[in-house]
Amino acid sequence: MTSTILSRRDLDFLLYEWLDVEELTARPRFAEHSRETFDGVLDLCEQLAERYFAPHNKLSDAHEPRFDGTTVTVIPEVKQALEAFAKADLLGMSFDAELGGAQLPVTVAQAGFAWIAAANTSTSGYLMLTIANANLIAEFGSPEQIETYVTPMLEGRFTGTMALSETQAGSSLADITTRAELQEDGSYRVFGTKMWISGAEHELSENIVNLVLAKIPGGPAGTKGISLFIVPKFLVSADGSVGSRNAVAISGLNHKMGQRGITNTVLNFDGAVGYLVGEPHRGLVYMFHMMNEARLGVGMGAVALGYTGYLKSLAYARERPQGRLVKDPSSPQVPIIAHADVKRMLLAQKAYVEGALGLALYCARLTDEGNTALLDILTPVAKSWPSQWCLEANSLAIQVLGGYGYTREYDVEQHYRDNRLNPIHEGTHGIQSLDLLGRKVTQNGGASLTALSERISETIAAAGDDPLATQLQASWRRLMAVTAHMFAAGDVEAAMANSAIYLEAFGHVVIAWIWLEQYLATGGRGGDFYAGKRQAAHFFFRYELPKTAAQLDLLESLDRTTLEMDARWF
Amino acid sequence: MTSTILSRRDLDFLLYEWLDVEELTARPRFAEHSRETFDGVLDLCEQLAERYFAPHNKLSDAHEPRFDGTTVTVIPEVKQALEAFAKADLLGMSFDAELGGAQLPVTVAQAGFAWIAAANTSTSGYLMLTIANANLIAEFGSPEQIETYVTPMLEGRFTGTMALSETQAGSSLADITTRAELQEDGSYRVFGTKMWISGAEHELSENIVNLVLAKIPGGPAGTKGISLFIVPKFLVSADGSVGSRNAVAISGLNHKMGQRGITNTVLNFDGAVGYLVGEPHRGLVYMFHMMNEARLGVGMGAVALGYTGYLKSLAYARERPQGRLVKDPSSPQVPIIAHADVKRMLLAQKAYVEGALGLALYCARLTDEGNTALLDILTPVAKSWPSQWCLEANSLAIQVLGGYGYTREYDVEQHYRDNRLNPIHEGTHGIQSLDLLGRKVTQNGGASLTALSERISETIAAAGDDPLATQLQASWRRLMAVTAHMFAAGDVEAAMANSAIYLEAFGHVVIAWIWLEQYLATGGRGGDFYAGKRQAAHFFFRYELPKTAAQLDLLESLDRTTLEMDARWF
Repeated sequence: MTSTILSRRDLDFLLYEWLDVEELTARPRFAEHSRETFDGVLDLCEQLAERYFAPHNKLSDAHEPRFDGTTVTVIPEVKQALEAFAKADLLGMSFDAELGGAQLPVTVAQAGFAWIAAANTSTSGYLMLTIANANLIAEFGSPEQIETYVTPMLEGRFTGTMALSETQAGSSLADITTRAELQEDGSYRVFGTKMWISGAEHELSENIVNLVLAKIPGGPAGTKGISLFIVPKFLVSADGSVGSRNAVAISGLNHKMGQRGITNTVLNFDGAVGYLVGEPHRGLVYMFHMMNEARLGVGMGAVALGYTGYLKSLAYARERPQGRLVKDPSSPQVPIIAHADVKRMLLAQKAYVEGALGLALYCARLTDEGNTALLDILTPVAKSWPSQWCLEANSLAIQVLGGYGYTREYDVEQHYRDNRLNPIHEGTHGIQSLDLLGRKVTQNGGASLTALSERISETIAAAGDDPLATQLQASWRRLMAVTAHMFAAGDVEAAMANSAIYLEAFGHVVIAWIWLEQYLATGGRGGDFYAGKRQAAHFFFRYELPKTAAQLDLLESLDRTTLEMDARWF
Repeated sequence: MTSTILSRRDLDFLLYEWLDVEELTARPRFAEHSRETFDGVLDLCEQLAERYFAPHNKLSDAHEPRFDGTTVTVIPEVKQALEAFAKADLLGMSFDAELGGAQLPVTVAQAGFAWIAAANTSTSGYLMLTIANANLIAEFGSPEQIETYVTPMLEGRFTGTMALSETQAGSSLADITTRAELQEDGSYRVFGTKMWISGAEHELSENIVNLVLAKIPGGPAGTKGISLFIVPKFLVSADGSVGSRNAVAISGLNHKMGQRGITNTVLNFDGAVGYLVGEPHRGLVYMFHMMNEARLGVGMGAVALGYTGYLKSLAYARERPQGRLVKDPSSPQVPIIAHADVKRMLLAQKAYVEGALGLALYCARLTDEGNTALLDILTPVAKSWPSQWCLEANSLAIQVLGGYGYTREYDVEQHYRDNRLNPIHEGTHGIQSLDLLGRKVTQNGGASLTALSERISETIAAAGDDPLATQLQASWRRLMAVTAHMFAAGDVEAAMANSAIYLEAFGHVVIAWIWLEQYLATGGRGGDFYAGKRQAAHFFFRYELPKTAAQLDLLESLDRTTLEMDARWF
């Protein structure tokens, strides 16, 4: 039976037929690898997803973590899944061999992890945070910190968190008030309260490594005075053994609409022992290293949910008889996939989730190439586009199932609830749009934008006189012309006021490019799979890309409707 | 403090300054009424909403009805609210005086009921179903049936349901298999199983009046062989007393993503006593009378949820400090309503919910006028447009609240979950789109479409040379041209394949018209309220109406992408 978690056929196409990840094995870092080891990881992740992660997805939604004032209880299946993942040595998939990692390409590791995220986004969250945390300490921590925290995290004994937000400072990190006071022994004492901290309290691991943003008194104001600290739940002795409890405790759990299986907490630091990572006041720089990875991870998580919802609604549409193609009550009912409107909803999902998966893996490939210029400008798109459109895919999956889709007896309503978090955390849509238009588009004299433009031009050139290439070229040129006009007009306030619309239009053009890439990668080959890819590309160019025209008209007009709206008029 | 359930100021504007409901008092049916009695009803509904319905909205979501195999338990606050509503004599708001009703205009009754639906959509569902049920029996039942069932329903002693769907026949009523066998005494015995029946089992009322679609053996095939039956939970004696249990029982509850407070059941009829309503085989005709009312009710329910979410996110945005307008960390934080992107999200919500409320009340006004030609063509729009865009408003409300919006500690996530049902029940989006394009646009030689076109032309004429009028005229003409082209092309399959896109484009143009109506109704008056109305109209014309251009291009091309998609290619 075909999996309804993800499509291995599509992953194989994207990895091997399009992104040519085998070529990476020619590089020294990946020299130990081959298509066989890549396939092995994908096989393993699929098996773990089916066996350990998918089975408790609904269960941990219905029985979310509970806090009795002292400890937090999580259903035991979560721990079993985390242990199975750790035991398979997958936590270090893309880490250096010297840290005990498998030194796999990020592209392959991401493709593998997508199985886990699609099977159970909440439980995968514990793993994602741990990996991101370990990655950050491995990059900026001292050798001692790496040995003390990274090694046990990659072994699955410790888990990790990111503690950035505070109740009074959500998207505005300049306003955090958590402070860290230097002690004579070189350590710090941390005081303050953090909000929205996922995975910060549970009994799933021996220890929890909290990475905490805090200000050292006397430092610069705003974001330039933020430092990064390791604040473990339990203090670790020199011999690596876990010792006494640190002064960090949760005061409560947040109860979310979705992603209920992962603890989300208010975390108090009451003079907790903390260890500075790297240099003082460089915390935000370090954190943004992790943040970019986390943003790409959120995008991939949104893709995974969209994709599994698509496959489940597809399976349903093939099985469910309903209605007829002709108005004759004596003719037999047909499976609903025979109805044009149902095919439209399936094609739209396919166009969204396969387009978004393509972008996510493309970004992973850029990470492997170390192409930060291109990665910088694609990151806000790779975070926000799947968060918007794979959520829309989940809504369409519900619609395909009709009343059944609205019930908790089926999976798709949970995917929709789970996915609704993705446009919010790790920087909201609004924050992503400011990042794209206010920073990435112009940074380094527009070098990132130029790099993207060159890639798109290459794709268009490769497509020859295919009408899709003509259409993409027109859309891209229009986007660039509007971008230039927005900056040339000299009304920064008006230009930035519609940054969210800009992000959406930009995202749609980027996904059209990714679709043209996939379309070309089919090489005109026959067979259902390739025909489906080409039809989905056509769908995107006919139903979706034209939506950008109205957005670009609005942007070009430097519309001031929102700016002119007086708050008292609401 | 201003209510965050609905805006009385806006209702007053729509009812009195725009739709001139006072004019209705000149008609004999409403001669007993005046602005005072209308205001009294609106006041009363607001008070009941605040006092009895809103307080248990979260509670009934967290503690949904439970079935122990015999009885269903609903939290007691639901019954208290229903009793308060009945005690205020509101069930019969728009019913004839001879039935004990208040004979209020439907427009006023709908406006009043919107308070109840916005405060608690689940609990309001019991009322809505009862009112619709009573309305149907009052219209098509015998005098005895009216006395036996309608009177106790309007008194609040009985409640009602609609039992149409079956597991194997969701949107396809031709395929129902429930049968009704005639008995010697003129009654019937009903056998079969119904699905998705809201309000069909509980202890909230003395009796439950199920209106059931079933086939009398030997009748015509398909929808033409469907008859309508009253199948009460308890049999009613000639003296009106409630007697023995009928052979109708639930086999289980459905567990939904939202609207959890109202029971939704699988209902079994095992030779249950049923009474034919009207003539045999006319059931679907009768039911569609109720269905149209129910579809308008669903639209209004979607509006109510969108509206209350808007008001809650607006209140939050006024209070919540976050970020700064200038990049100086020493400047004070501003309330988030000061940020352009937040204003955009609030303006979009305002444009969606006030536009949709306008359409819903406009349709109610048409009901009062008995203008079925216009009502026919607007009903699929009034059902589907709010279901789509007021759901989008709820998503934006979550986004304004950020992480808080995603938690169950705040209200907006529930509104989003509750509202997601509305594009599904009482005819999905797909069904509405087939109704619009496949039936309403062409019915009676296009009389409904012509009637709408005339109204829109009148509005445009009244607006003179205002640019909004010019824009609406261009959009409407283009929609009409594309409509004509679609039918002239002779490819019905291709024309119908994109009926859902047609419904969306049609809906956006209709709402633009409703916004131009509201814009004109401000009469250029000064003050925050009117300025806000005009700015929201501008927003809709600048940000929303232009979206239809790409949709109309697609429709005009008679695109066959979905038709050409082979099911095996997915």
